[in-house]
Amino acid sequence: MSTSTRDRLVTAVGELMRGHGYSAVTVKQITTASRAPMGSLYHHFPGGKPEIAAAALRTSGAAYIQLLPLLMDPHEDLREAVLGAFTAAAETIEQSGWINMCPVGTVAGEIADSEPALREVAAEVIGSWIDQGTTYFVDRGLTEPESRELILAILAALEGAFILSRTLRSTEPLLAAGRAMAARTEAFVAGDRSRGQSPMPGEKACAAQ
Amino acid sequence: MSTSTRDRLVTAVGELMRGHGYSAVTVKQITTASRAPMGSLYHHFPGGKPEIAAAALRTSGAAYIQLLPLLMDPHEDLREAVLGAFTAAAETIEQSGWINMCPVGTVAGEIADSEPALREVAAEVIGSWIDQGTTYFVDRGLTEPESRELILAILAALEGAFILSRTLRSTEPLLAAGRAMAARTEAFVAGDRSRGQSPMPGEKACAAQ
Repeated sequence: MSTSTRDRLVTAVGELMRGHGYSAVTVKQITTASRAPMGSLYHHFPGGKPEIAAAALRTSGAAYIQLLPLLMDPHEDLREAVLGAFTAAAETIEQSGWINMCPVGTVAGEIADSEPALREVAAEVIGSWIDQGTTYFVDRGLTEPESRELILAILAALEGAFILSRTLRSTEPLLAAGRAMAARTEAFVAGDRSRGQSPMPGEKACAAQ
Repeated sequence: MSTSTRDRLVTAVGELMRGHGYSAVTVKQITTASRAPMGSLYHHFPGGKPEIAAAALRTSGAAYIQLLPLLMDPHEDLREAVLGAFTAAAETIEQSGWINMCPVGTVAGEIADSEPALREVAAEVIGSWIDQGTTYFVDRGLTEPESRELILAILAALEGAFILSRTLRSTEPLLAAGRAMAARTEAFVAGDRSRGQSPMPGEKACAAQ
């Protein structure tokens, strides 16, 4: 079952990076966690740990972006959808004992200046999130520039709030970030609806009357 | 000059963590970079690497939050102040060749589940940022709950955008996050000014007329 061994290696590295980051993970930990002999590891991944880590970032990155429609589709109101996604993330992170919800972000932050090949893989994953998120918001009625603007801010707020919430052991950063992103979403939706235009770069994004 | 040796050790670990994260940094790299003998390292920091890393997080964390008034005070308009801070961060990160602007955030993300003592130090640093940021926005005229809500979202967006911008080698995430946070700020300011109330948890934060 060579496919299964490969999958076990990728899953093991993904889980190890979730808890320990990239540098702290050893090849020995990988073979132990995946119940794969060393030879098998290098058979499937001649490049060793960096190559398995790249596969793990791609695999988990592809899975994470699937959460976007899963969490947001049930909400007809787009503002509620964004708020609901952040609230669900806050509930999950607390209930899981402050698990690292996104090893892609934390590993990227750790290795962006020291592991150029892995940084490029992380950039590819994040780039695909931006593209897929843009498509999602276009499907929900925003313009393409608005959608890209919104998903960039949401991904930034989410990645940063994950770190703050895990570090503080508090859902407060995720909830505050979610309310800010819900407000941003509302401004785009309201702009589309009533003005036929929207708050874009350089303009005031929203103004209370 | 034992104070100077201690400072050199802390500075060296701060710089090493900026480029490599926490786990990848070795005691040998620390003594080399700080030009301090091994005995001197353990004289000043009997706990070794984790203890110097804690000191580095505290020192750089205290320095980073000083940037808040430095970047924002020149702007009379609070929305412009927040936008200006993110724009300045984007310019600096690009001009520096995508340097890690905040090792506190990336190290926290890396070690939150694996180094409990260091996580607590990071939580202490981030907690002080929240307190000082709250005080800053109160001084600029927002209420205490608004100020806390705003600084939490800003710190989340900034930390996440740092990671996205470094990974993508693009200022786009920082600029999009900055525009979102400027809009959030504007909504609080406008709420204070014209309604005597503000967009708070659970309410709609802003609505275009």
